[in-house]
Amino acid sequence: MNNVINEINQRLENILSQYPDSKVKEAMYYSLKAGGKRIRPLIVLQVIRAYGLDYRKYIDIACALEMIHTYSLIHDDLPGMDNDDLRRGKPTCHKQFGEATAILAGDGLLNEAVNIILQTNLDDSLKLSLVSCLYTSSGINGMILGQEYDIENEDKKLSKETLDKIHHYKTGKLLSCAFQMGALIASPNDLEILKQIGYKIGLAFQIQDDILDVTSDAKTLGKNTGSDEANHKETYVTLLGIENSQKEVDLLFNEAQQLVYSLTLNHGLILEIIEKLWKRVR
Amino acid sequence: MNNVINEINQRLENILSQYPDSKVKEAMYYSLKAGGKRIRPLIVLQVIRAYGLDYRKYIDIACALEMIHTYSLIHDDLPGMDNDDLRRGKPTCHKQFGEATAILAGDGLLNEAVNIILQTNLDDSLKLSLVSCLYTSSGINGMILGQEYDIENEDKKLSKETLDKIHHYKTGKLLSCAFQMGALIASPNDLEILKQIGYKIGLAFQIQDDILDVTSDAKTLGKNTGSDEANHKETYVTLLGIENSQKEVDLLFNEAQQLVYSLTLNHGLILEIIEKLWKRVR
Repeated sequence: MNNVINEINQRLENILSQYPDSKVKEAMYYSLKAGGKRIRPLIVLQVIRAYGLDYRKYIDIACALEMIHTYSLIHDDLPGMDNDDLRRGKPTCHKQFGEATAILAGDGLLNEAVNIILQTNLDDSLKLSLVSCLYTSSGINGMILGQEYDIENEDKKLSKETLDKIHHYKTGKLLSCAFQMGALIASPNDLEILKQIGYKIGLAFQIQDDILDVTSDAKTLGKNTGSDEANHKETYVTLLGIENSQKEVDLLFNEAQQLVYSLTLNHGLILEIIEKLWKRVR
Repeated sequence: MNNVINEINQRLENILSQYPDSKVKEAMYYSLKAGGKRIRPLIVLQVIRAYGLDYRKYIDIACALEMIHTYSLIHDDLPGMDNDDLRRGKPTCHKQFGEATAILAGDGLLNEAVNIILQTNLDDSLKLSLVSCLYTSSGINGMILGQEYDIENEDKKLSKETLDKIHHYKTGKLLSCAFQMGALIASPNDLEILKQIGYKIGLAFQIQDDILDVTSDAKTLGKNTGSDEANHKETYVTLLGIENSQKEVDLLFNEAQQLVYSLTLNHGLILEIIEKLWKRVR
């Protein structure tokens, strides 16, 4: 998998190098290369590999997804949103480049992801379905709605159902999109199952974030810990405690594994990602 | 033209009504319906009409363009950018809904414009060329680059060439896009001439903005006047004075008119827009 990650990083660098020089390009580049785990693009390409296709033809699709993810982090960190100083162990985009350029860098990534997909030489209908999948998952019926739910529910006592709903939109939609994009490219008939795998992993991933926010430290995590408590955010940990939250994580990853086994593909390549996420410490 | 504007407004309302209820949807709606002049969507549809096509099939395309324009205004007004309190005579989006929701409302409009185009029943290849035109004009080679140039050049003494470059990207790209989208739908062979008409009108429009910022008042303009001086921005007026700036405006609109006459279409429909813009007081 590390080779694939290197290829994603290399391609992101190439994409950015084509833009006209400006501070906003530097800011986009800074946030894109700031040590992200590349989980979402990796999922797209591993799903494609698992069906026996050559993933190299689709690296740009994976990069477009990572650009959308990165834009959401830049805007999430802004003073008007979560006001975070540290991301992936480095100053956040607005800390490094100023707020105006950070806003534009986020806008730029959200704007250019579609252009990256359009510039590939894939079939018109595949381009359209990939763009639709990506921008539906990230939009006002997806990630952006989740971010809004998150803001609206700060300082509130929440039920597990409400928390699940927030996570489903805020984290699940884009993580599931990674699996769906792989399915659209390699095996559209399996779209529904891969979508469900994505939602389960997305929820598990978010619960892990809640756990790591109280059990980890800023050095390991690359961002400030204790931020949920500081922001008066209800989390899985405040609702269920650490132990029961971890049980939920294990259950969800287990269910995702079972769904993977129900598909006809190279299971190992998908299970490798699940394993990597399950054991993550940052 | 007023009928067309009403239809655009009605369709924008319908589009928004399909989104799940949330504060971010309200904020998107608030900014979209806050009395915009609808210049860009109107251009798209008037160009289509001028070629004898039924514009009603393409209202969604015009709406997508207006959504991109509105997102740029919301983000431009943010405290981290121009920090404006008033827009179109009303409190700006962040003044009304808070900064976090305003950031998300802008993101939402930028995100959803592509989905609107994808959901039309136009041919795949036309959808792709329209999306490409829109997101290239608005992106890191277009409007966003112009916004970055604008920020980088605050408090600086500028040449007319630099000012023209800023205007070309910040205003010209999206205004020209309106003419280009009309061309892509109705007469792709005329794309280049319509593009040039758009750039000339875009520059004239921006110089008018510079003039109105010193000659108009907040009530007429619907936003605070004198903001360029307050932001220490070099403008056409500070460079050339009001009279010479107006001469430049007249020259550009005249050139645009001549280009319109070089095309085979219903000239009156395009000249009607040029006239309307030429005489605008807000």
